[in-house]
Formats: sequence, C-alpha cells, structure tokens
Amino acid sequence: MSDSTTNTLSTWVEVPKNSDFTIYNLPFGIFKNKRLTPRVGIAIGVKIVDLSVLDREGFFSDFFLPEGIFHSDVLNDLISLGKVQTKKIRERVQELLLEDNEKLRDHSARGKVMVNRKEAEMLLPVKIGDYTDFYSSLEHATNVGKMFRDPENALLPNWKHLPVAYHGRASSIIPSGVPVNRPKGQFKNPDMEKPGFGPSKKMDFELELAFITGKSTKLGDSVSTEDAEDYIFGFTLFNDWSARDIQAWEYVPLGPFLGKSFASSMSPWIVTLEALEHFRVNGPSQEPEVLPYLNCETPHSFDINLEVQIQPEGKKATKVCQSNFKYMYWNVAQQLAHQTINGCNINVGDLMASGTISGDAEESFGSMLELSWNGEKSLQLDGGEERTFLEDGDTVIMKGYAEKDGIRVGFGELKSQLIPAK
Amino acid sequence: MSDSTTNTLSTWVEVPKNSDFTIYNLPFGIFKNKRLTPRVGIAIGVKIVDLSVLDREGFFSDFFLPEGIFHSDVLNDLISLGKVQTKKIRERVQELLLEDNEKLRDHSARGKVMVNRKEAEMLLPVKIGDYTDFYSSLEHATNVGKMFRDPENALLPNWKHLPVAYHGRASSIIPSGVPVNRPKGQFKNPDMEKPGFGPSKKMDFELELAFITGKSTKLGDSVSTEDAEDYIFGFTLFNDWSARDIQAWEYVPLGPFLGKSFASSMSPWIVTLEALEHFRVNGPSQEPEVLPYLNCETPHSFDINLEVQIQPEGKKATKVCQSNFKYMYWNVAQQLAHQTINGCNINVGDLMASGTISGDAEESFGSMLELSWNGEKSLQLDGGEERTFLEDGDTVIMKGYAEKDGIRVGFGELKSQLIPAK
Repeated sequence: MSDSTTNTLSTWVEVPKNSDFTIYNLPFGIFKNKRLTPRVGIAIGVKIVDLSVLDREGFFSDFFLPEGIFHSDVLNDLISLGKVQTKKIRERVQELLLEDNEKLRDHSARGKVMVNRKEAEMLLPVKIGDYTDFYSSLEHATNVGKMFRDPENALLPNWKHLPVAYHGRASSIIPSGVPVNRPKGQFKNPDMEKPGFGPSKKMDFELELAFITGKSTKLGDSVSTEDAEDYIFGFTLFNDWSARDIQAWEYVPLGPFLGKSFASSMSPWIVTLEALEHFRVNGPSQEPEVLPYLNCETPHSFDINLEVQIQPEGKKATKVCQSNFKYMYWNVAQQLAHQTINGCNINVGDLMASGTISGDAEESFGSMLELSWNGEKSLQLDGGEERTFLEDGDTVIMKGYAEKDGIRVGFGELKSQLIPAK
Repeated sequence: MSDSTTNTLSTWVEVPKNSDFTIYNLPFGIFKNKRLTPRVGIAIGVKIVDLSVLDREGFFSDFFLPEGIFHSDVLNDLISLGKVQTKKIRERVQELLLEDNEKLRDHSARGKVMVNRKEAEMLLPVKIGDYTDFYSSLEHATNVGKMFRDPENALLPNWKHLPVAYHGRASSIIPSGVPVNRPKGQFKNPDMEKPGFGPSKKMDFELELAFITGKSTKLGDSVSTEDAEDYIFGFTLFNDWSARDIQAWEYVPLGPFLGKSFASSMSPWIVTLEALEHFRVNGPSQEPEVLPYLNCETPHSFDINLEVQIQPEGKKATKVCQSNFKYMYWNVAQQLAHQTINGCNINVGDLMASGTISGDAEESFGSMLELSWNGEKSLQLDGGEERTFLEDGDTVIMKGYAEKDGIRVGFGELKSQLIPAK
C-alpha cells in the first residue's frame, strides 16, 4: 500500500502543488452537482472519483459489494462494510489512479468517473448517531481553568486521570459552507444583577479534529486501547462553535448546553486512518501514570498541522492560530477506551471530537477565548481590523495537513460564515 | 373525542380494574411476538390492537396513509405524519373499540387484529436522534446541591432562570425488560489518594418522565412556549440509571458522562399528549419571574402519580418512592422553548427527559441518592433487606398513572434488572 515511504507514487490526475488531496490521501465524501444526485466520492487533486460510476463500470466487480452502496447521501452503509472492504476500495482507487495504470485513464467512462471538484457540492458525509466532545488538550483546559476558575489550580483534579468529555448535540452538526446564525440566549456578566437575553456577544470557534467510528459495539462491551483504532474510520476538521457568554452562565453543574448546541461544523472529506499512518508519532508523556484501561503500548498520536484563519466580510483572511494535533494529551485510543469502559455502546457514524487543540505558544491557542484571553486583548487582523470575539460576517477557515518525506495528506478546508442572529 | 369528561366510555375489550390502558389512553408502541414481525400497536386492556392488520382490513382506507406505515420497528415514520394524522388514527381506534361499535367487534378479522398483550414483546418504540436530560425538579436540584456542594447555597444562581440540562447518550437508551450491567469506571472517594477503578459501588435509579418530539424544526429556528406542545408527541417513563461514584469524580467541569451513558431505560408505550389533556394542572409558581421566552400563558403541567419499587432478586417488591410529575418547577413547554432558543434544531424522535422528579416529602425523592442521603441512611425493604444504593439482582420498577373523574390513563411498567458488571 501507498503508505510505505519507500516509493513515490504519482498519478495521471492533475494534483496542484500543496494539494491536500494527493494520491496518498484519497478521503471519502458525499457529493452532488447540478447533474448528479448525492453519491460517494473520493477526492484526488482537482477531481472527485465518482465511485458509483466506477462500480457501474465493473471496477469493483470482484469485491461483491451490496448493490447501490455508492448511491447514498451518507457514508454510513459503506463504512459499515468494515475496514477490510473500505480499505480494499480505497486501494483499488489508488491503483487505478497511478500514472502508469491505463485501466481507468484510457477507459471510455473516464469522463463520467472523474468529476470536477470545484463544481461539486459537498454534503454532510455521515449521519451522526451520537456526538462526544472531549477536552483533551492540556493547554486548552489549563487556559480555560485559569480564566474561569482558579489561576493557581487551573487544572481540575480529575483531568490527568481521565479524558474529560461531554455529550454534544448531533442534530446541529453541519458541513463546511453552511452559514451559522449567531445564537440568542441568556447570559449574566459579573456586573449584571439578573440575567439578560439576546444575541451572544462572545462568539467563538474551537479548533478540533473529530473521528468517525467505523464499527459498532454491543451495550455492555468495552473497547481496549489496543483495539481502539479498529473502530476508527477516519478524521475530519471540526469547529465546535461556542457562545462563551451563554456557556459561562449555563454550564454549572451539568456542562455546556445551549452555548454549543446551535451548530458545529465539520469538513466534508473523511481522511482515513490508513492515510494518516505515515504521520503517527508519540504523544506527550503522561504523568501521573494512567489507570491500566487507559494505558497504551503503541503510539496513537498524529503529527497534523492545523490552522485557523478569520476572514472579515469582503476582506482578506488572516491566520490567527497555528496548532498541531500531536499536542493532545489524551489520544484517540484512550478517548474511545474511556467512552466505552462503562459499557456504553457505539454505532457506526458516531463522532468523537478532540476538544480545542491548543499548544504551549500563544499563537497556537485554538479559540478566540484563549487568543484574546477572554476579551482582554485584541487580535490584529490584516487590513486594520481587530477582534476579541467573532463579528457577524466573519468567516472562520480551518485547515489541516500532515507532511513528511514529500508525502502530504490534508483535510481541505472547513469554512463557515457567522451571520447575524435570526 | 374521549378526553371530555362529560360522557363515560366503555369498550368491548377486557380492561381489568385499575388497568393503565383504558379506552381513554390508547398509547402507541412497537411489538412483536413469536408469529409476528415488529409492528405498530395500540394498547387496550389485556390486548394490543395490531394497526398493520387493521390497516390491511381497510379500517384506515379513508386516511390515505403511506403503504406499510404500520410495518416498522420504530414509530418515527408514523409520528412524522404529524399530529393531525396520528390523532385521527388514535380516534378511529377508540371509536372501533367502543362497546356498541360492531365494526371491529363483530368482524371476521377481529382475532388477528387483537393480540394478547402478555404474549407480546415490546421493543424500543422510537429511534432516538438526540437525547436531552433536564434537571427541572427544584427539590431534586436542592437535595443534590446540599449533598455535593453547599447546604447553605444548594441551588446554583442560574437554576431559577433557566431549565438546566445536558445532552445525554442516545445509543444506550433501552426498553423496559432489558437488564443493565453494573458499569465499571473511575471513582475517587474523599478518603482515596488517587482514583480507583472497578464496578460502581453507588448504583442508582432516577425517576423521570420523558417526552418524544413529534415535529422537526430547522436549524436557526426556535419554538415558543405557546407552540411547544405541537412539537410533543407523547410521554414515557424514564429511568436515568446513574453511577454516583463515577459521576461525582468525572462531572466537573463538563457535566455527567460515563456515570450515565451506560444505560437509560424507557417504558415501551408512548402515552400521547391528547390522552393526558384531562390531567392538565398549573405548575408551581415561578419566582423570580422568568425571561419572556420562558413565560407561559397557559398551564403545561400534568398531574401524574409516579412511584418506584425495588425488588431484590427472588423477593417481593417494596415501594420506595411516590412522587408526581406536577411537582416539576420547569414545564415541558419551557424545556422545549429553552432547548431551541439558540436555534438548535430538533428532529422527530428526539427524547427530552425531565430529570429526577422529587417532591417536598422525603418519601417522594426520586433517587436512592436522595432517599439514602448519599448512603447515610438505609432504606428498609419488605422481607428484611436494606438498601443505600442498588445491589446486583435488584429490579427497579417504575409506574405512573393519572386518574380523575373515574378516568385513568397510565404508562404501564418500566421494569429493569441490575445485573453484575461484565
């Protein structure tokens, strides 16, 4: 498979320099365009491989796939086939796209199989059952603790013993491109005698990565850290939009609710775990030692560069944050082992997000809350604008890619505009 | 319709004295038995009306229902038809079951339409999209605050301003009858230096009612308290199983997670809002005044008697709690208005649970946590057993019914056994 570093792969498809969608990546998504109904595609360079047409033309005939598996508006059924099958499908596509492979390149159906990516509309790729949001960045949890609780004891006593998380709202997860209305709600600033009501005044993004589960468990069963990656299909960028004033007032004692549930945005291409294999690294050391069910024998962190840009309406975008997925204290295997240790069942298409990914350096903080230190300092944007929190019309752009040994695997963009309250 | 108090209705079906499933109730559920695949039924006395057979025999032919609407293992599609249709279906069934109506009573298919309830297996009636658990009982929130936080300031500052809630785990909601494994997890009692791991030692129930949403909203839209009941299809009993030691250690700052997500049980019959109309009452007065979006012009509380029994394995059941839904400080219209005020979209089949329903009196406390005051005092069960929290083999039985003017509408039983950790 391509993920070895020993040989360089090239393709007959046009792949611009610094494209996230190289022959090594081949993420899955759901697309449609003016002519085509929703279907499964794989991104490569400027194109999308229409898997439904590829299947119709017999390129998967030896796999005995269920009829119509690629004619769907979600990936759930495809993912449910299991990793053995989805891996074979992705490898077959890779093989067909290789420079010297003439099977598709010179095939009469090539024009129908290869769809222009810029003419496609990308849909939410998965019907999400349950959504969990972790809180796995030490730096983020420390920053929030300093601001909202006690600077001396920023990290709560449980934080280094378990990957803290909460259940999020699945219904309001939307794909890149869908604008987000500024939510209304209650807030009570320290100077207010009683709570006020109105559009949030502290709108924020949270830079996260999320994984999509690819295998179910039965109620009562647990997944070990060793087996956890068998249950992970792939990753997307995730913007956990947050209304800080609503959140601050509501979150005690049961956690975030309306401060988050108005919308969460995800990037439309699911980058498979296989595509990220080449970028696996050790995570931060964990001290104190974790309980045995959270112990990992092998690394489960990934070196993925992440960034956030803010683009005021009609203006240029400015990069405001540069972070990395490898900073996460708790890794994905630990998150999944923790989620299921009590016997909680998972289904194909659950989404588990990392929580805000902040690093040590100030420019690596993954939210406006941290970057502006709860509004205490302004961020300078190119073109003279300043921000403490987001303003109506601002577009938040998240990007992520891994790169090593000339191999690049990226997530594309997650780009959503904040629009005024309804 | 039957819900008027002026005339007494009777039916040709055998309805034992004190049956929850009177001619006034007619709740919807999904059942199967040895012969029959899953399908939609309506409970009446000792019987279930098999709506799929009723439909096949032409009893709904003037309603122009979608083909196969009653041949489903969930009620979602039926509920999605809307209240106008589901109300008509329920009213047609009621009409057919009336003492003097010979249409079904004397029909040759009567034997196939009327299925014995005790031979039926009841399934989870709804595919639940998102699950919200509120925290709407003043007495419960006060009790928990006294035990876990500050007896002098038991209620947190936000509690009387908004119906506090958290997102729960939808995947692990199971129907009555399915046993629940004691969950394993981390806990840290005050006397422990570092967290321990193992089966929870503080297993608890929470007595709740839940409503199922019957209408969707679009992202960005809100539901007013005035319109809220249009979005509520019906109610079930709900046991929000809780592992208090796991919960106490994990819940700061993001709320309950593994202490709850291992299982929640619901009763299988959905009692419609129409059937509860006759039991509508004013809720407690709310002081301080709520914000306008939470204000209600009309009552949205219901006088529903609730009780919990504990049955040790092989022993008799003992009633340990007697409460009432009308005690709830925040009503269902306020809950739904709050859930959507930020634009969070709801889908048909979402479940919103009340939170533990405790009253003023000690015997009305809706959890072992409160009844045993976090283990400080033992509950005496009939037969000499004592309990502070639940023991393996204990069956928790919840019941609920409304009764007035000789009209009774009940929920049947929610009965689940706690079994040892896996």
